[in-house]
Amino acid sequence: MKIHEQHYQTIWVKHNDPGIIQTIDQRLLPFHFEILDLKKPHDFEVAIADMAVRGAPLIGVTAAYGMYSATLTNKTGTEREKYLLEVAESLKKTRPTAMDLFYAIELIQDAIVGIKDPEQQSNIALDVANEMAEASVEGCKKIGKYGLDIIRKISQSKKDKAVNVLTHCNAGWLACIDYGTATAPIYMAYDEGIPVHVWVDETRPRNQGSRLTAYELGEHGVPHTVISDNTGGHLMQHGMVDIVITGTDRTTRNGDVANKIGTYLKALAANDNKIPFYVALPSSSIDWSIFDGINEIPIETRSPKEVKYMAGWNGLEIEDVLIMPYKSKALNYGFDVTPGRLITGLITERGVCKANEKDILKLFPEKK
Amino acid sequence: MKIHEQHYQTIWVKHNDPGIIQTIDQRLLPFHFEILDLKKPHDFEVAIADMAVRGAPLIGVTAAYGMYSATLTNKTGTEREKYLLEVAESLKKTRPTAMDLFYAIELIQDAIVGIKDPEQQSNIALDVANEMAEASVEGCKKIGKYGLDIIRKISQSKKDKAVNVLTHCNAGWLACIDYGTATAPIYMAYDEGIPVHVWVDETRPRNQGSRLTAYELGEHGVPHTVISDNTGGHLMQHGMVDIVITGTDRTTRNGDVANKIGTYLKALAANDNKIPFYVALPSSSIDWSIFDGINEIPIETRSPKEVKYMAGWNGLEIEDVLIMPYKSKALNYGFDVTPGRLITGLITERGVCKANEKDILKLFPEKK
Repeated sequence: MKIHEQHYQTIWVKHNDPGIIQTIDQRLLPFHFEILDLKKPHDFEVAIADMAVRGAPLIGVTAAYGMYSATLTNKTGTEREKYLLEVAESLKKTRPTAMDLFYAIELIQDAIVGIKDPEQQSNIALDVANEMAEASVEGCKKIGKYGLDIIRKISQSKKDKAVNVLTHCNAGWLACIDYGTATAPIYMAYDEGIPVHVWVDETRPRNQGSRLTAYELGEHGVPHTVISDNTGGHLMQHGMVDIVITGTDRTTRNGDVANKIGTYLKALAANDNKIPFYVALPSSSIDWSIFDGINEIPIETRSPKEVKYMAGWNGLEIEDVLIMPYKSKALNYGFDVTPGRLITGLITERGVCKANEKDILKLFPEKK
Repeated sequence: MKIHEQHYQTIWVKHNDPGIIQTIDQRLLPFHFEILDLKKPHDFEVAIADMAVRGAPLIGVTAAYGMYSATLTNKTGTEREKYLLEVAESLKKTRPTAMDLFYAIELIQDAIVGIKDPEQQSNIALDVANEMAEASVEGCKKIGKYGLDIIRKISQSKKDKAVNVLTHCNAGWLACIDYGTATAPIYMAYDEGIPVHVWVDETRPRNQGSRLTAYELGEHGVPHTVISDNTGGHLMQHGMVDIVITGTDRTTRNGDVANKIGTYLKALAANDNKIPFYVALPSSSIDWSIFDGINEIPIETRSPKEVKYMAGWNGLEIEDVLIMPYKSKALNYGFDVTPGRLITGLITERGVCKANEKDILKLFPEKK
């Protein structure tokens, strides 16, 4: 999508230097736009753990390029094998909730297993990572088309008034490679001339909504308004939300969804006010091995500092300010689980289905 | 309650200078403790509108002292009457949602109507304001006792484990004169030796939870943990919350409650997880003239700046930092309405009742 009227994706191989992967440093947005060079596996680990890149699909592709980066080592033989395994393990530990992370690493591992020639191994790893990035873009486009149908239908019933979409966190193109998951239908509706307006949940404590979603919607020209995470219920009670669309970091076989903490509260409010609540996802986010999201998905606990301090622009630089008593404790869960019963539908690259095992398997019969 | 081991109330007549009312400037907490002198009616209006004082009961008592301050004018006759009316109107406009504000101003107006002698008028106004403050303290103590019974019962079922109370915003003693409404049962439980732990919702966008509730609980020694507003649902899904207690700014005749934006979302989560959700209130917050909270209670829209900027301590001073794209819009509703159906009980100074007209009127039969 567009930044400063120029087309970008979130991650790419550096022009004329395939040893370096480049990405947008999302820690600095929306205040600074800066490109980050990732040169060795450790750079990829830090970029993921420290959230220079974030969002399940982008985390996956970054980890894939990280594995590619590991194959560029000079090590050979069993030492090389051991090293690749260590990098894979380190990468897997960077974020415990995102399904795409494990999926991506294993895809690379499967592709290069048994390949003895280091150069050939690197070439294959790079091809697979590139394909994964391209597949993500294609998947997001398909999700966008299926979601667009839903928005178009709502728009027809609203005549010329804008369709109000509420979204939580950033499941935008910055979380993917391009288009985004939850935002893909919004961008496509906007590009098609359907009037849309997006309520952007701030998404504390890291403010991915107000910092990233607002930024990317603004850069592309989509009308939007930032609200505190507390506000959505009130808007829904007063008919100011037509549809909620969020992303997901991990989806269970029966349609429970682990997404940014607070998603569950919006799903409850949508349910209470009979507002459609959709989750947009590439099927790579589905963990086919688990059923019960609340009891089976591990939820990441992040540093209490993210609650205690707030990063913002002081006019000169990005600064952390203390926003609560220094001596008080804080706790910081990254995700919560929205049970399938609260979800109107899952928007996947193969179409829209209800959030239960039977309907999911109709779209993905090979997983039966 | 205690600050730096010393007992404080939130507002008082200055020692040896009854023309000045003193209050704690809550805009500076928890970073600075500073006493604010309120000398003329305009000071009271600014203190309320700018939230140096906040919380429904404290707003009411401050407005009452503001009316007293107006009676200290030198104006006489119809000019005086007109002036008092103007001050009353200005004070009423400072915050549109809090019921206590209108109640307090009208109580002073009723008390001084027909009194011709200015000095006598001032004395009466001061007496009424003082009585209102004392009545608030007594009311909070009674709310505390009734709420304590509920916490004690939960504690007995948990053996030696702490009772986990979740609260939203600040309905603490800083919102009242002393004890608080939602916090009174917590302080009494703590003082009685019942193990309690409080989950403090940050309460965006003004952070009354992380700035004020955490501060006052910490100063009094009550164990507590600050969480983002998004977190409560996850905690409830995992059995980490035993009871939710919030305050209210306005309560309808049939038990709908307008409280800080986001309260409704916590009520939905409590209901979904079968966790008791109580609202603590002095009966002065009940608007006996209205039934339907969602359609009849006016909801204050505050400045978008409160969403766009965050105030925090930079190590030297309190500073506002920009936390979203400067060119994006923001919207800032102050309150939302929680329907009575989601509320387990109202804890009032006369006892606990269900949130419906019939049960409320059993406690307040004179309002039939």
